[in-house]
Amino acid sequence: MTHDSLHRTPLSLLGLGAMGTALARAWLAAGHPVTVWNRTPARAEALAADGAVVADTAAQAVTANTLVVVCLLDDRSVGEVLDGTDLAGRDLVNLTTGTPAEARERAERSRRSGARYLDGGIMAVPPMIGVPESGAHVFYSGSRELLDRHGPTLGVVAGTTYVGADPGFAALHDVALLSAMYGMFAGVAHAFALIRKEDIDPVGFAPLLADWLVAMAPSVHDTAERLRSGDYAKDVVSTLAMQVAGTPTFLRTAEEQGVSTELLSPYFALMRRRLDGGGGAEDHTGVVDLLAR
Amino acid sequence: MTHDSLHRTPLSLLGLGAMGTALARAWLAAGHPVTVWNRTPARAEALAADGAVVADTAAQAVTANTLVVVCLLDDRSVGEVLDGTDLAGRDLVNLTTGTPAEARERAERSRRSGARYLDGGIMAVPPMIGVPESGAHVFYSGSRELLDRHGPTLGVVAGTTYVGADPGFAALHDVALLSAMYGMFAGVAHAFALIRKEDIDPVGFAPLLADWLVAMAPSVHDTAERLRSGDYAKDVVSTLAMQVAGTPTFLRTAEEQGVSTELLSPYFALMRRRLDGGGGAEDHTGVVDLLAR
Ligand SMILES: NC(=O)c1ccc[n+]([C@@H]2O[C@H](COP(=O)([O-])OP(=O)(O)OC[C@H]3O[C@@H](n4cnc5c(N)ncnc54)[C@H](OP(=O)(O)O)[C@@H]3O)[C@@H](O)[C@H]2O)c1
Ligand SMILES: NC(=O)c1ccc[n+]([C@@H]2O[C@H](COP(=O)([O-])OP(=O)(O)OC[C@H]3O[C@@H](n4cnc5c(N)ncnc54)[C@H](OP(=O)(O)O)[C@@H]3O)[C@@H](O)[C@H]2O)c1
Repeated sequence: MTHDSLHRTPLSLLGLGAMGTALARAWLAAGHPVTVWNRTPARAEALAADGAVVADTAAQAVTANTLVVVCLLDDRSVGEVLDGTDLAGRDLVNLTTGTPAEARERAERSRRSGARYLDGGIMAVPPMIGVPESGAHVFYSGSRELLDRHGPTLGVVAGTTYVGADPGFAALHDVALLSAMYGMFAGVAHAFALIRKEDIDPVGFAPLLADWLVAMAPSVHDTAERLRSGDYAKDVVSTLAMQVAGTPTFLRTAEEQGVSTELLSPYFALMRRRLDGGGGAEDHTGVVDLLAR
Repeated sequence: MTHDSLHRTPLSLLGLGAMGTALARAWLAAGHPVTVWNRTPARAEALAADGAVVADTAAQAVTANTLVVVCLLDDRSVGEVLDGTDLAGRDLVNLTTGTPAEARERAERSRRSGARYLDGGIMAVPPMIGVPESGAHVFYSGSRELLDRHGPTLGVVAGTTYVGADPGFAALHDVALLSAMYGMFAGVAHAFALIRKEDIDPVGFAPLLADWLVAMAPSVHDTAERLRSGDYAKDVVSTLAMQVAGTPTFLRTAEEQGVSTELLSPYFALMRRRLDGGGGAEDHTGVVDLLAR
């Protein structure tokens, strides 16, 4: 333990997979006393050399410090690991990915066990942890008081973004952003498939594609304003009618290039449904309403 | 005609819809003598006040200048309008959206008519035309010589990006980028649908979403490098196996929030197919190969 670490909040960390190990390393490097536990002990022992205290059981790890961070595979493993531990008086921070309902249920169980609860959704991969310039951040929801108290400690591993007292909101933000990313990945896959058989270098094509997506991303602000106001037709530049009229060109181009339209068609079908429902003068925002049942 | 316009290349423009009108205005404002023609004459007359010469017929417009730009609804309307005009010796620039095959066929017909041919795909909406800081640009393919000759004139309305001698490549780039954008829009629609019933302000959520998409867009460079090298497994941070393992959280969250998974499922199904095919240690690049039949 370095002299410096005497001034840092000590914490316990349960779960030393790829992400938990990255978290442990970042806290140890910043001088925090860290007690670790992992189901498979070998992964904990590797951290002992870096100064981690290795607990024999999850129960011991939970008892060792007020601040208890868990980063396990999924909500089920969190249940199994915390079962039989004494959470009374603990500040529990759950960085395990899950659904909003799982986070809410976890918060409720923690409350009944006498613990404060903060849920986190990590928007980063392990190499970004503890690297401020990586842009890594964690969405937090649940106890604001807990985030205020441990903000400096949590901020060591990644930026902190509080999104509400509802403990499910961190998971919801996490899943929403990653879902949007998978939509973008689907579009990107389709774009690369279109040029695949042509004499077009994908590496030369990539900057055109990346710049275009970056240029189009701010359109989410317009969509958000429309969702808030409920007015989907005001000052529309490309109407839904125009956009739907353009879709055959996309589908025929895919056909010409021998590319499946399975990633494009579902969105086009929703635009068409909204158009048929009378949304021709709107932009594409109405698709959101068709999705939410 | 201003003194300035004597030094500007004169041109003919066929098609004065929203886009054609924006093009005409930008060229007129920059001092180019512009001869216009539109099927519905009223739209041409509105431009006469700005200095445009109005041709009575498409044939007259084509004869009036060496540089002939067409911006009509679709390839079929281009065929109808150019039918019966004399294209011999013309520099034909086709800014009408179409498929790569349509552009190639149009180039071949032009060649047989004795015209040089340049195809263009406009990456902008009308308000961006003639506004350099808007980032508007046009993909061009076909005759490089023609773009070199008329680059300064074409550059008045939007930036010029040459993508190859194959006349179909401008359309292919245009459609590929817009397809990727629709994928992103699909993901964005899903994300907004997820938060729709919660007490979350979409306008507060939008910057988080936009910043995340901008941060993830550069991943297309990595995908491009993998497609070029054929190595989808080197230095992978998030393996396909990990990504597929995470998909139930996305699907269950959608279920919890009452949101249809129709925009997410097709991409997840392709990731699963690649995983089942043995791609577990790869990243998600292999989806591209599954799309291209
Ligand atoms: N890696 C990323 O890129 C990333 C990014 C954002 C968020 N996350 C989230 O962070 C969390 C951890 O991810 P990871 O990458 O560290 O996963 P991982 O490398 O697969 O590690 C999983 C961890 O969970 C433990 N575990 C699994 N089942 C358990 C059980 N039934 N009882 C006790 N422990 C159990 C494992 O212990 P053993 O060592 O004994 O198997 C291991 O410590 C996940 O929720 C993940 O979604 C990860
Ligand atoms: N607007 C955009 O945001 C945008 C963006 C990028 C690319 N583009 C492309 O630019 C092209 C023009 O778009 P736009 O927005 O100007 O479309 P628009 O406003 O609908 O105008 C269509 C034009 O085509 C003419 N036309 C249609 N069918 C015709 C026919 N059979 N014979 C003769 N003329 C015919 C129309 O003449 P009438 O006036 O007589 O009907 C009008 O001049 C399209 O290929 C579009 O995809 C548009």
